[in-house]
Amino acid sequence: MRASGQTLTAVAARSGQRAAAYAAVEGFERTEPDYQSLLDAPDIDAVYIGLTTDAHVPWSIRALGAGKHVLCEKPLAMNAGEVGQLMAVQQRTGLQVMEAFIHPFHPQFDFVREVVASGRLGELRAANAVFLSRFEAADNFRWNREHGGGALFDLGCYCVSALLLLLEQPVVWADAQQEFLGEVDVTTTGLLGLPGGRAATLACSLQAATVQQLSMTGSAAHLVMPHPFSSIDSSATVTVGEHHEHFAPVNPYQRMVVHFAAAARGEVPLKLSLAHSLAQAQVLDALFRAGAGGQRTWLVAGSGTTHEG
Amino acid sequence: MRASGQTLTAVAARSGQRAAAYAAVEGFERTEPDYQSLLDAPDIDAVYIGLTTDAHVPWSIRALGAGKHVLCEKPLAMNAGEVGQLMAVQQRTGLQVMEAFIHPFHPQFDFVREVVASGRLGELRAANAVFLSRFEAADNFRWNREHGGGALFDLGCYCVSALLLLLEQPVVWADAQQEFLGEVDVTTTGLLGLPGGRAATLACSLQAATVQQLSMTGSAAHLVMPHPFSSIDSSATVTVGEHHEHFAPVNPYQRMVVHFAAAARGEVPLKLSLAHSLAQAQVLDALFRAGAGGQRTWLVAGSGTTHEG
Repeated sequence: MRASGQTLTAVAARSGQRAAAYAAVEGFERTEPDYQSLLDAPDIDAVYIGLTTDAHVPWSIRALGAGKHVLCEKPLAMNAGEVGQLMAVQQRTGLQVMEAFIHPFHPQFDFVREVVASGRLGELRAANAVFLSRFEAADNFRWNREHGGGALFDLGCYCVSALLLLLEQPVVWADAQQEFLGEVDVTTTGLLGLPGGRAATLACSLQAATVQQLSMTGSAAHLVMPHPFSSIDSSATVTVGEHHEHFAPVNPYQRMVVHFAAAARGEVPLKLSLAHSLAQAQVLDALFRAGAGGQRTWLVAGSGTTHEG
Repeated sequence: MRASGQTLTAVAARSGQRAAAYAAVEGFERTEPDYQSLLDAPDIDAVYIGLTTDAHVPWSIRALGAGKHVLCEKPLAMNAGEVGQLMAVQQRTGLQVMEAFIHPFHPQFDFVREVVASGRLGELRAANAVFLSRFEAADNFRWNREHGGGALFDLGCYCVSALLLLLEQPVVWADAQQEFLGEVDVTTTGLLGLPGGRAATLACSLQAATVQQLSMTGSAAHLVMPHPFSSIDSSATVTVGEHHEHFAPVNPYQRMVVHFAAAARGEVPLKLSLAHSLAQAQVLDALFRAGAGGQRTWLVAGSGTTHEG
């Protein structure tokens, strides 16, 4: 954020000591003794919420109540119902809330959306997104179900978000197979039914060789993003048929913060709306229900709820 | 087959004229007026059956009855029940029957099986096989459901066969989304549930940009076959982690015929058993039932039947 032209005013953490250590490393001007003190500070316009997933919506709602714009770590919520609650508060306040996904802020993503919109791929036949990586099982919220751990929340949400943004189609139903380690899904593999007999697949894992990839095959051309979810200072190459489109290294975190600040000032519309977060949460809910229930789960478009198929 | 050291004795077709034209191009010594005449010829040891899928099992059974070994085009049967009938006849006669898949006869396939067996990938986390290509909709059995057309039969059977051979695990359940064009599935996307919470995905299409790929990601390494299903005189490269294993061009059709002739002479065990064909047909049945029924379909291991989950 330092490089984004915004001022890093204050940081709060679970303890004043943790906040002070973080502030020293990251260059914050001051620390606040706790989260509420930070929200009460009159000279702060926006907050970035990087707590465990179960704390995202409660603290986002408090931040809106304190008049702050909210940039919140992904996944935004524990379920679609929570996103609905947050949407209601956001609409009352008129403040901006955005789920902090970086993938839409890498230029490769705009390029792929343009390719899809141009019709260059033809009619969609297949789509697949995977985000597999390795995190040691430790005393970390990733391994704690109550706080929103597991592969689907931690990595699968990227796959779902990117597929929804690029396919530009609602997910009609989901099926999933999940492997558990302790109390969380260490791996989830999913099938997403789209309208018209189309489908997408995804896989995510917390204990695998690191692989990320998104591919879309149409009636006319095949597209591959070998690094769809990118990272700081990442270059990228997107292949469309025989064409390779190269992208110089960028910092999508910085681009995300610059964009969010501009949106908070009312200069541009938000790139990622809460409607996108709701659709994504509905798909995650459906995947969890399919994995646990052992059957395909249908989504009721737009209602924010699911029922068993 | 000419290059395989076997003698191309005779060919039969729907008409004597078609057979004569084919014999002239392919170098057969003589033509037979119809299929049964060919089976009745006493100087023929083995037949290759390349009819439409619905004719595979009936003619394979007649060929066995005439004392011929049978190499039969894929998919071997319209359903698992037909494979079971063929297995019963094969066991009575002791003659050899093999489904003519070429992918196991490319050296890359032996390499990948060794990598998997060595444990180099670690525990399986994700697997995906796709075979997408373009065939114009024409007066061809591919577009005729009664004769066994559609993407899942024509291309998806490769994905299922390769996954079953490489994963070395039974499929427990399947779910699928299918897009229809006329009376056949032009595209099928599937999710295959494996034991222990693991899964594989697949996609096949008759009207897409041409892509074939098989990937397997384990806890220790990621493996990619960019051309798993190969073709005549095809080279190949398999990537395992940072390692690239290159394979010089081979003709897997020729290797398949040489192998089958050796197996027919009792010199080597068959590389592809009817048990493999049965397992594959059970998975295809389950995918069709899931696609048509709109729900996950469970396979009952080893029984040759399926029931709804």
